[in-house]
This record gives sequence, structure tokens and C-alpha cells, in this order.
Amino acid sequence: MKRGPAIRNIIIPGFRFAGISAGIKKSGNRDLALIYSESPAVTAGLFTTNRIKAAPVKLAIKNLSSKKAQAIIINSGNANACTGEKGMKAALEVISGTAHELGISPGLVYSSSTGIIGRPFPADTIKKALPGLIRKLNRLSLKHTASAIMTTDTFAKISFRQVEIAGKKGTIAGIAKGAGMICPHMATMLCFIVTDIAINPHALDPALREAANRSFNMLSVDNDMSTNDTIMMMANGHLNNPLITKSSPYYTNFKRALNEITYDLARMIAEDGEGATKLIEVVVKGARSSSDAGKIALSIANSMLVKTAVYGRDPNWGRIMAAIGYSGVSVKENKIDISINKVKLVSKGMGTTREKAARNALSSKTVIITIDLGTGKENARALTCDLTEGYIKINAHYGT
Amino acid sequence: MKRGPAIRNIIIPGFRFAGISAGIKKSGNRDLALIYSESPAVTAGLFTTNRIKAAPVKLAIKNLSSKKAQAIIINSGNANACTGEKGMKAALEVISGTAHELGISPGLVYSSSTGIIGRPFPADTIKKALPGLIRKLNRLSLKHTASAIMTTDTFAKISFRQVEIAGKKGTIAGIAKGAGMICPHMATMLCFIVTDIAINPHALDPALREAANRSFNMLSVDNDMSTNDTIMMMANGHLNNPLITKSSPYYTNFKRALNEITYDLARMIAEDGEGATKLIEVVVKGARSSSDAGKIALSIANSMLVKTAVYGRDPNWGRIMAAIGYSGVSVKENKIDISINKVKLVSKGMGTTREKAARNALSSKTVIITIDLGTGKENARALTCDLTEGYIKINAHYGT
Repeated sequence: MKRGPAIRNIIIPGFRFAGISAGIKKSGNRDLALIYSESPAVTAGLFTTNRIKAAPVKLAIKNLSSKKAQAIIINSGNANACTGEKGMKAALEVISGTAHELGISPGLVYSSSTGIIGRPFPADTIKKALPGLIRKLNRLSLKHTASAIMTTDTFAKISFRQVEIAGKKGTIAGIAKGAGMICPHMATMLCFIVTDIAINPHALDPALREAANRSFNMLSVDNDMSTNDTIMMMANGHLNNPLITKSSPYYTNFKRALNEITYDLARMIAEDGEGATKLIEVVVKGARSSSDAGKIALSIANSMLVKTAVYGRDPNWGRIMAAIGYSGVSVKENKIDISINKVKLVSKGMGTTREKAARNALSSKTVIITIDLGTGKENARALTCDLTEGYIKINAHYGT
Repeated sequence: MKRGPAIRNIIIPGFRFAGISAGIKKSGNRDLALIYSESPAVTAGLFTTNRIKAAPVKLAIKNLSSKKAQAIIINSGNANACTGEKGMKAALEVISGTAHELGISPGLVYSSSTGIIGRPFPADTIKKALPGLIRKLNRLSLKHTASAIMTTDTFAKISFRQVEIAGKKGTIAGIAKGAGMICPHMATMLCFIVTDIAINPHALDPALREAANRSFNMLSVDNDMSTNDTIMMMANGHLNNPLITKSSPYYTNFKRALNEITYDLARMIAEDGEGATKLIEVVVKGARSSSDAGKIALSIANSMLVKTAVYGRDPNWGRIMAAIGYSGVSVKENKIDISINKVKLVSKGMGTTREKAARNALSSKTVIITIDLGTGKENARALTCDLTEGYIKINAHYGT
């Protein structure tokens, strides 16, 4: 059993949270969550690129043209995907029920689901639980929301930063769930970010997109992409700061904090990959372009042979070289350096015979594989985890 | 321990074979093989598209512009990849040594290597073994060649067909090795095919390419692609048949036999995937184009979640739907049917609740997943295997 960082009691002014057990999961664990803003918030969202999308994802994409939200209701235990017309009706019922109980417009309510695909969606179970869920809404309950969205995650994932804007301290806080089906663009990943900072929607949207591209889209657990992936961010402006726009002097700070939060969450997802015993960070330097660097970093992060080698503490750099070679990027074999946690294994394309030191380095819980391509100045990094018998056990028997 | 089909004593007129233990593998198993034609043969070859290529692959690509070969020397236990100038020199030494011992031109000799990457190549060990290897050359020894090229394979892979051409019976026989690092375009896969049929090089090359596209390029074990993949085919013409050209009436029969052999070998490779307990064949029908069908078939065959579900006999069709959705092909969710070994699990995009029957069907050693997209008439099939703890065990500790 892995443990995440200690969860603190974070307050984000104007936001309230709840996470309860509604009886969707057989285990009796928390499975229903609510994020509520006291006033409508500027909202941005990114959704799975899978052609087969869960009902709530289809609805959210449509609804988000308003760039406004006040509540997000999230369940785990059932993905409401491949559920046809009935699933769509069920998602709409959950949204209208939540809006009704909260006394707000259904157009300001979004729903999100994660769990097994293709099972009838338990809309009635959720509707019955709504009054109890709303009674639990609390400024301090972000941690309960974070745990209610978990599926095979072993710890709740929360990250936050404070940002100074015109003499005031704003807060950005994010929660995520990950575990399996994680692949760039995107994962069975849900991520919700809230902030009291006032920001223009035309500045929020590209900031969120950039943050996702540098974190979740550089994250791979098993190359699979789900029907439900969702990142949503709500900014309710309760800080009463001068509105941040793309040309605002505070935009850079805002983006930096957001990038740090999403990278934190992505790292936690990798660390908590199904069956993982090690976090792997792949750093590619010396590339001709950051796109080249990114392709190579992901090619290595996706390699089952690299991931099993890290698990077995086997400094088999040939597998890293092979993954560089099939990334599609043109490289010069005799300029490539490869290090594992600072032990240089390959110099100018050839082995250094430092394999014993590398094997020791691989004992570490965090393994950083650094590639210097020696052909330019651009870089990128990707996140993944080792591949173990635990992944097989979880996925051979999860679901039915 | 799995067992392949019984290996018969096949004779292909004009060819002789040998496979011995030269001491490259610590295990003492066969690790050096020779394929020899009594006269120069028309030859075609396909090689890894990995940008990082092993020394013998670089040499073979260059040399094959002649479209001629008389001998191929193959070793397992060391890939001679990422070995720099020394590796190139070692490969050239093996080729010239073999040519010298056989008394033929070095331009007619090819070498091929498989095994660990980045280790100094044991050219001296191989050169010392050459006289013994050549003494063993025998018309009946194809099976020894097939076992000498194995790495983590658990059985030798041989397939052959007879083809009638103008009243004469020609033979085509192929051997292959697979196991890990198997991905379309191509795999840590070596495949050598020989025939006594006389065929024009301009007819042989496209026939081999088509056969590879329908078999090895539709095969996935773990998405990894090696630095050494090689398919070579030699046709020595000892049958004395009227030369086959692209417009010859016998070309279709020749191609059909070749397609059957490569599909047989690809199926054996999937069946013998590292740690595999089941062969999985993915059949996609009703597509708008065969390219669409192929993309979907490979997307499913590459899904770790589908492969672990098959291992766990879990009829989790949501994972199949997700893989269809992220294949990049435009599909109509409400037209998709999915069956497992004839049990229909999904009809028009919705579950049929026949999960118990599907679970029973998944007990079979061969699992056929059939998708009908309901949008056209084209189809394709892909081959893979289940993903088990055995894969992890083999790959966490293989190599160093």
C-alpha cells in the first residue's frame, strides 16, 4: 500500500466540497463527490479525444460553450459509457436533480463519471443520495472529494499553490484520479481544479491547455485511453483581484502555479500507477525541437520493456536505445548519452560498463532516466511507472 | 512450457542448414545457425524501421541491392546493436570468415543477430565455431537452424507449403523467432524463408512485402520494436520451373502459399509471446476501408487492458470499445457488434448481458475477438497474446 503526501485542510474562498458513500461501489468506499462554487465561476475544460465518449463527457463538451459552471457532481464505480440513450438520460437526470437540490440552473451543473464501462448507470442511487451529499458541503472537505473520485488509486491526489496578485494571496487547488488506462491525450483521468482568482475565460482556457500538455499529456501508465477523461477548472473570482487577462502582468505567475499543480498531480498519478513500485521520470535534453524531445520521452515512457527492466533493477539500456530509435525522431546514435539517476550508462552511443552502479541507482523509489541527444538545445520530460505483476493482477480481474 | 507443432524433416532442394551451440549463450543451447544455398539465390529482404539499427542490419540493407545471396549466418545471444565501429568490424569479420570457409564471395553472405543490445560482439567465438558449423550443413537440418535462432522463444517455429508450378512441385519453407519486443513494422523478429522455385526478383520483393504486411505487421506482443528485425527470403530456382514473374499464371499460387506461411509463423510468434497463455486473434469486419479495419484491429491487439482481461477471463468489452474509440478511426458507436469466440457480447453498441457465456468462451486457448463495425465491407485481422505475470518475470530479469 502506497501513501500520498499528507492531505492538508485547504480553503479556497467561495468553494465548498463533499465526498460521500452513495452505495455505487460494492466496497462501501466514498463514490460520490460534489464541487460547488457560491457563485457561477469562469470555467475551462479538456476532454478525452477517444471517439467513443461517455454520456457526461458528451454533455459537458456541449454545455461548456457557456464557459460557466457552478457545480460539478462526480461519481466513481460506473463510467456511464457505452450505455446508449438510457445513459444519456441518466446523466441528464443526475444534472437536473443536482441543480434542483442546489437551487441553481441546470446549465451551471456538470457531471463526470469514472469506473466500469457498459453497465446500466445507477441514476436512482445517486439521486437518492443527493440531499445527504449537499448537506455535507463544507469548505474543508476537498480531501473527501479527492477520495470519492478514486477507482483503483491507492491514495487521494491533491496539490495546491498560492499566488500573489496585486498584494492579495489567491489559491489554486487541484485534485485528480488516475491509476490505469493512462495514456497521453489523455487517461482514465479526472482532474478538477478550483481557484478564487478572477481570470478572463480567454486567458484561463490556454493556461489550462498548456498545463495539461506539459503534465497529463506527458504521462503514460499503459498506453490505454479512456472514454471519460476530463480536466475542468473553475475560477470564481472571490479574491476580488484585478481580472487576469493574457496580457496581465500576473498571468505568468498564474500559469506557473497551475503548471506546478498539474505536474504534481501527474507525478502522483504515475507514482500510483496500477501495481507500480517506482516512479519513472524521463528527461530528454539536447534535442533539435521540444516536439522531438517530447516524442522520444514518451516513446521511452511507453516501452513495456523499459518499464519491466526498471522494475527488475536491470540497467538494460539497449531497450532505451531501441525506444529512442522507434520514436520516429531522427537521431545520431553516436551522440547519445544515457544516465540513470546520474550514473552515466551510455556515452556517445556506447555502453560505459557502469552497470553495477546503475543497478544500485535503480534501487531508488524514483528513477530518473536522462537522455542527452547531443543535437540541439530543446528538452522535454515524461512521467511513467514501472510495470509489475501487480498491474496484471489488478487488470486481469478488475470489473466483472 | 508450450509446445509448437511437430517439426518435420523438410527438404528444399539445393538448400542445406545447420544449427549448433557455439558458446555465445551461457545456457549452452544452440546459438549459431547457417542457411546455405548450393548456388546463388534471388533474395528479398525487409528490415526494422527503427532508426537505430544493428550492425548486421545496416550491412544487409546495403548489400541487398544485388538481390542475391548464397548464405545467411545467424546468431542468437547477442544483437550486435549499439556496438559502434567495433560492432560493424565484428559483423564484417563474421561475414568474411563465413565466405572464406564456404569458398564463396563475401558479397553473397549475410549475417543476422538477435539477443542483448550493447554488449561487445563475440566475433572470435563465432569465427572459431565456423568450421564445425559448416561441417554440420545438412539438407534435413532446418529444425536445428530454427532452434538456434531462438532467444526467449519456447518452441522452434517452422512452416512450409508445396506449390504446383507447371506440373512440378516446389517447396517454400520458413522459420521465425519472436517472443518479446514484438510490434508491427516489425518485431525482435527474425524470419528466413527459402524456396527452390525460380522467381524473378521484381516478383519476389512485392510478394514478400505483401506477406509481411498481412502477418508480421499485424502482430503485436508488447508494442516494442527492435533494432534487429529482419525478414529474408532466398529463391534458388533448383526446381527448374518456368521463371515466375508478376504476370505469371503461377504468381497467385506462390503468393497464397507465402501468405499462409508468414501468417502461420506470425500466429506461432503470438502464441509463444513472452509469458502468454492464450493466442488472441482480432478480426475486424464491416469497415469502410481495410486500412480502417487494420488500425482498429491493431489498436485492440495493442491494448494492455484488453490483453490482461483475456488473461483473467474477464469479458470486459468496455476496454475493447475504448480501444476502438482511440484507434483514430471514425466509428458509429450504435452500430458496433463485438463477439468473443462466437458469443455476442455487444449488439449495436450496447451490452447483451451474455457475460457468463463469454467468460466460458475465454477459457479456450485461442480467443477470437470479432468486431463488426456495421459501416462497410472491408476487414482485417491482427494477432496478439494475453499479458500475464510471466511477461513481467521474463522481462524484469532478462539480459544482465
